[in-house]
Amino acid sequence: MTTFYRQPVHVARGEGVWLWDTDGRRYLDCYNNVPHVGHCHPRVVEAIAGQAATLNTHTRYVHDAILDYGEALTAKFDHDLDSMVMVCSGSEANDVALRMAQAVTGKTGIIGTDNTYHGNTTAVSQLNSSKTPIGGYLDHVRQVPAPDNMQPVGGSCAGQVEAFAKGVEQAIAELEASGHGVSTLIVCPYFANEGFPTLERGFLDRAIAAVRKAGGLIIADEVQPGFGRIGSHWWGHEKLGFAPDIVTLGKPMGNGHPVAAVVTRPDILTAFQEQFKYFNTFGGNPVSAAAAMAVLQVIEDENLVQNAADVGAYAVDLLRQVQVQHDVIADVRGSGLFFGAELWQDGAPATELCAEMVDAMRERGVLLHSVGRHENTLKVRPPCVFSRANADQLAETLDAAMRAVT
Amino acid sequence: MTTFYRQPVHVARGEGVWLWDTDGRRYLDCYNNVPHVGHCHPRVVEAIAGQAATLNTHTRYVHDAILDYGEALTAKFDHDLDSMVMVCSGSEANDVALRMAQAVTGKTGIIGTDNTYHGNTTAVSQLNSSKTPIGGYLDHVRQVPAPDNMQPVGGSCAGQVEAFAKGVEQAIAELEASGHGVSTLIVCPYFANEGFPTLERGFLDRAIAAVRKAGGLIIADEVQPGFGRIGSHWWGHEKLGFAPDIVTLGKPMGNGHPVAAVVTRPDILTAFQEQFKYFNTFGGNPVSAAAAMAVLQVIEDENLVQNAADVGAYAVDLLRQVQVQHDVIADVRGSGLFFGAELWQDGAPATELCAEMVDAMRERGVLLHSVGRHENTLKVRPPCVFSRANADQLAETLDAAMRAVT
Repeated sequence: MTTFYRQPVHVARGEGVWLWDTDGRRYLDCYNNVPHVGHCHPRVVEAIAGQAATLNTHTRYVHDAILDYGEALTAKFDHDLDSMVMVCSGSEANDVALRMAQAVTGKTGIIGTDNTYHGNTTAVSQLNSSKTPIGGYLDHVRQVPAPDNMQPVGGSCAGQVEAFAKGVEQAIAELEASGHGVSTLIVCPYFANEGFPTLERGFLDRAIAAVRKAGGLIIADEVQPGFGRIGSHWWGHEKLGFAPDIVTLGKPMGNGHPVAAVVTRPDILTAFQEQFKYFNTFGGNPVSAAAAMAVLQVIEDENLVQNAADVGAYAVDLLRQVQVQHDVIADVRGSGLFFGAELWQDGAPATELCAEMVDAMRERGVLLHSVGRHENTLKVRPPCVFSRANADQLAETLDAAMRAVT
Repeated sequence: MTTFYRQPVHVARGEGVWLWDTDGRRYLDCYNNVPHVGHCHPRVVEAIAGQAATLNTHTRYVHDAILDYGEALTAKFDHDLDSMVMVCSGSEANDVALRMAQAVTGKTGIIGTDNTYHGNTTAVSQLNSSKTPIGGYLDHVRQVPAPDNMQPVGGSCAGQVEAFAKGVEQAIAELEASGHGVSTLIVCPYFANEGFPTLERGFLDRAIAAVRKAGGLIIADEVQPGFGRIGSHWWGHEKLGFAPDIVTLGKPMGNGHPVAAVVTRPDILTAFQEQFKYFNTFGGNPVSAAAAMAVLQVIEDENLVQNAADVGAYAVDLLRQVQVQHDVIADVRGSGLFFGAELWQDGAPATELCAEMVDAMRERGVLLHSVGRHENTLKVRPPCVFSRANADQLAETLDAAMRAVT
């Protein structure tokens, strides 16, 4: 695997928002969304340890934990999304979701954005833009220009809604002309890998209407924005204001335990199972279900959605104060505990500078990373127990690192 | 998910070879290979609980656990198989392995058997024979007749080596003629889903030579036979006597924890990573690595490979004694703790009877299931702590159930 940072961090221990390396040095973790409720949260650890000591087996038997979790999770969704399949990773979830759309529509065409990542399986990696898949892109996949704040589709933020929809409409026309038809538009409703542009509510409405008119379904990949991270809502699609047919979940779901899920309507799940007879050995095993249930309960009990909203707004405000001091910070944006700063220099995306900043922050004990088409946006996406004091440290360190690097 | 048995078992607790349902009834688990070293083995539970309380994060950092495990695991392989990628499931492992073969060879053609299962991703399910994939089988996948003891390829056990190889040679010719070329032959070296036919050492040699001559690699899917289950060897490919280029591991690796791996040569891993830049968020996280390491140590410390050999031979002998009493038992075969009995009636595979037997055994407190092209083979694949006393109970129950059902 490629490690982060020029000097990789040799990690030893984690707690809350903190990571320690093997030399005992402490780092403020501003990046990891997997430990959603904090590294090594005792309630999640207890749930895993307790269930692992009691029973862990596949789901060819009946077990209460998966049923209880399914009910608790789907209660967080509207739009008749009350059925769930548990899997092991967000990649597996998206791999299943794409097939669900194909099973329901009888068509194969898939539309995604041209600057995204939905996972690592052969099928899902067809959607990824960082590397051309082995064997090349398949003809039934179309990538449309991704929304962006600094370089909006169509040239202006005002015209981006229409320009994005036109991209989708063109992809639909191509897929219909080629005989594939449209099975789905899959998007992260926060456009996380695209650089989380600030988008108005209803941004996707016209594009979604075009997909639906063509008979396609909408998949919301909530792996990054989901579980309350964005503060304003539990799910990214609620913030953007649309009704997905299928939702995929991953990374934060088990606080690090390999568990993920697809949530959908019962008719879609039935159509998929009739076509596919899907089974996943580890998916929804009692330990995975217990870990996921503990995460859900901690989010509620510790008011972490509210915390994400409060601390996120506070942190963005701090970063805007830092922005005033540094011309290279072209934009500060985000929602809840998913925010960042886009860097430009001499009228162009400051990719090199951003990489230097990532290392300069690491040297100063703050872990974050970059994102976006040009990797010129500092990405902050910490455990949701991140506090105002943590935000203070982040902003102060950012200011100091910026002074050292520029 | 489809549950096992007419009356699904509502499980509550597990320990060693035992499962208890919510009514407190105890079942002898003769089927589950996932709890490889026994349900809820205390050393594995302790490893998971301890590491979960210390640190669990992705592998963009350096962590000792994954490095230590990689060294311990690859020490179990010959043939320069000293590189490892950790993933979350056997499906993900096979999905990666197929792309590795494609990356190295620059070709796409894949050959598997016509009665197999390698996993549930879109790409891997192209190889599965239980359900036609959504959108149909892709043109670069070829299924060749699987070896079988009762209905051998080519009509006789003596001629099966040649007949199987001819099937592979024909697939190679087709893939070359269609322009796909041959990237790999992927097989379970124990042909587990094919009904684990008894095959002579060197069975695959001619087929493998043909694949290599065409420039293809060999993938050994060791998800079922691996980790010493077959008693005679750690890995199925050792028993059959061939050198795979890529080995995939899954179910038993973490005793239920969602962890799996691909083991290969460094040149293959490098070629794959240059093409793909693969990353797996949960793959090889510290808890997964700790669980896998504990399993490896328990196998060694409790001599479970030797136990599989001893108890497996004892059990097969007992089943042969039962066979004498029941004409419907056409064949008893297996190796180590992976064995079973094939049922025939009136000159045909006894599929219905086998299903009845599965339920009759469950009613008598013994859990097993069926396998094979006609689902007419009782499949026994228990945790590797299975004892001679457990084998006695299995054989006695089998005899009683058979008397009741026939």
